Amino acid sequence: MVIYLDNNATTKVDDKVLEAMLPYLKEEYANPSSMYGFSINSANAITDARVKMKEFLGANSEKEIIFTSCGSESANTAIKGALSYNKGKHIITTKVEHPCVLNTYKSLEKQGYKVDYIGVNANGELDLEELKEKITDDTALVSVMWANNETGVIFPVKKIGEIIKSKNSHTLYFVDAVQAAGKIDMDVKSSNIDMLGVSGHKFHAPKGIGALYVKSSVMLPPLINGGHQERGHRAGTENVPYIVGMGLAAQIAKENLNYELKEVKRLRDKLETGILKNVFNARLNSSISNRVPNTTNIGFEYIEGELILLHLSDLGICASSGSACTSGSLEPSHVLRAMGTPFTSLHGSIRFSLSRFTTDDEIDYVLKHIKNVIEEITAISPYQDELEHLRKSRI
Amino acid sequence: MVIYLDNNATTKVDDKVLEAMLPYLKEEYANPSSMYGFSINSANAITDARVKMKEFLGANSEKEIIFTSCGSESANTAIKGALSYNKGKHIITTKVEHPCVLNTYKSLEKQGYKVDYIGVNANGELDLEELKEKITDDTALVSVMWANNETGVIFPVKKIGEIIKSKNSHTLYFVDAVQAAGKIDMDVKSSNIDMLGVSGHKFHAPKGIGALYVKSSVMLPPLINGGHQERGHRAGTENVPYIVGMGLAAQIAKENLNYELKEVKRLRDKLETGILKNVFNARLNSSISNRVPNTTNIGFEYIEGELILLHLSDLGICASSGSACTSGSLEPSHVLRAMGTPFTSLHGSIRFSLSRFTTDDEIDYVLKHIKNVIEEITAISPYQDELEHLRKSRI
Repeated sequence: MVIYLDNNATTKVDDKVLEAMLPYLKEEYANPSSMYGFSINSANAITDARVKMKEFLGANSEKEIIFTSCGSESANTAIKGALSYNKGKHIITTKVEHPCVLNTYKSLEKQGYKVDYIGVNANGELDLEELKEKITDDTALVSVMWANNETGVIFPVKKIGEIIKSKNSHTLYFVDAVQAAGKIDMDVKSSNIDMLGVSGHKFHAPKGIGALYVKSSVMLPPLINGGHQERGHRAGTENVPYIVGMGLAAQIAKENLNYELKEVKRLRDKLETGILKNVFNARLNSSISNRVPNTTNIGFEYIEGELILLHLSDLGICASSGSACTSGSLEPSHVLRAMGTPFTSLHGSIRFSLSRFTTDDEIDYVLKHIKNVIEEITAISPYQDELEHLRKSRI
Repeated sequence: MVIYLDNNATTKVDDKVLEAMLPYLKEEYANPSSMYGFSINSANAITDARVKMKEFLGANSEKEIIFTSCGSESANTAIKGALSYNKGKHIITTKVEHPCVLNTYKSLEKQGYKVDYIGVNANGELDLEELKEKITDDTALVSVMWANNETGVIFPVKKIGEIIKSKNSHTLYFVDAVQAAGKIDMDVKSSNIDMLGVSGHKFHAPKGIGALYVKSSVMLPPLINGGHQERGHRAGTENVPYIVGMGLAAQIAKENLNYELKEVKRLRDKLETGILKNVFNARLNSSISNRVPNTTNIGFEYIEGELILLHLSDLGICASSGSACTSGSLEPSHVLRAMGTPFTSLHGSIRFSLSRFTTDDEIDYVLKHIKNVIEEITAISPYQDELEHLRKSRI
């Protein structure tokens, strides 16, 4: 039995998505760039998926959609392309970006770029005043995530876009929407976003497909040079099955957005309030209402997250202590540190992330077992005096 | 009905490969980087596929294998990484590389690199003396393909490696093995190859997965920065289903190599000699024995390739006039031009590329119809005098 509450790490491929992909993994295997009639279906399937992605992101035209192999490739293409297009040497991002994005900026710092990392408050909200102050004539790029992968906190990307363009209309604006896609309404055309990246496997398409929105006015050079695919923006024979899959997954996600915002949120809130009510040393790492509906991040004070995950794994429950990309590292989460999360719960923070496939029974199962799991681990904590103090203060 | 003779453009996914992939598109959807028991199967599946790729390429260790999203990404990672690792400003490649590789060099020329393009003779064979002479102390990279996608001609990559390292041991050596993989025996460890790229969809894995071999002594920086996947060489959540698929496809290709070298070659030769015998204005664009077993490139004199392809397509026969990546362009093939192919057949050259799924019946069908197809098109050629002359000279 698997109770999968790690949907911010990856998601199950929707059965309907797999079904739509299968013909392109079987008989419709033509290279879509070929000249013969046999390639027409695969070429049309890509066009159809591109239109679906345009609708999903709220772009003006399907020509603004580039298919990539993952969210990391989308981000690298956007960031490196933007710095080739705009010759400024200053970049602004946030302290809580995904490691993929942060590592790219670390490597750019070594190449001579100056990077400012904007901080967040205890609820994970961005300091917009600091952001505004930092933008200069030399700012080539501002790069922020739409929703945080660990806390689910949503950044006000539209407002940020207005701030950026009011201070420097040449500064390019990249939004990492990997964790927002499928969880909130997106409409890039009504924003000042120049580039926006998503990853299919976060909304029930397979791992290994992503997309990059590039506003039609931005002439972004490719990260992967070569053939004329993606109108010269990304070489490589198209991954037709996964492109078809992501197109349908996007359409389904759009159709299910209300369910996500109501039912998935109801289950998330049930899990969150249930844990906070029953576990005395649990505290919420962000309580603001402006979060994606599927994510909660709960700190269990004075105990170790790895041990919690192991116990949960034994019960068939999948959750996480940070991004999957950094799991295995013993460093506490850079996101929670940026929020000033107290050290007492920093090492014992767990992210639960739901999906539209999560059920009431699954949440009930977690709520039934988590109190015992945490109590067992808490009983062997070396901080018994502090725990006793905490227990008294919370009862 | 589809007679698919364009296997150098892409191949059908082997049924066994798809079958092996399906569990990872269904229930085994865990992110392989996650900490819980549920991710063990997907993590192990990647390790298993990496070992299979190591065996396929003849590498020393599976740690030398990096999974990528396609052959173009492999090439871009190798080339751009090598130029970051070796500070020389001179590159040597050939005039007949795949457009993916050539376009990358065109863009590097704009960034200040000097690129020498080595020529070939009428049979498509590389001028090794010219190559040797061009290597200098400033040569950062030599980049050659193992087998040509249009003619199938095999370059002597082992000998080239010896030449390179004898003249400059610091020069890095990249081999584009996209068209060699599965068609000839590969053993990178016994060569001087530093980096070698392959693409799964050329040997019956799906489109959207590739691999890059990097010799353990070469510290190649990533093209896609981010998470710690692929031991820091390539960020992005792993495409588990396709990695599994390519691993099995590699194993099957290795097991079928003798069949490829004997049976596929027999069918290719039957097609080739049949056409040359029955069509008076057909000439072979490379007749050397050192070709991959599945490819033939035949020029039909005084007629247009696009028209031939259209007629063949009407009969359900898929072939091509160049790489799929450049199809749609009316430029004659840069490979055939480099070989000095006479203009009389340059515009009417067709590549037929077979696979282990090609049958005698399919070849018989092509041989039955091609004479009529070519005669019909030849009848409306404006070069009737020249054709009459040719007919007389060949009878």
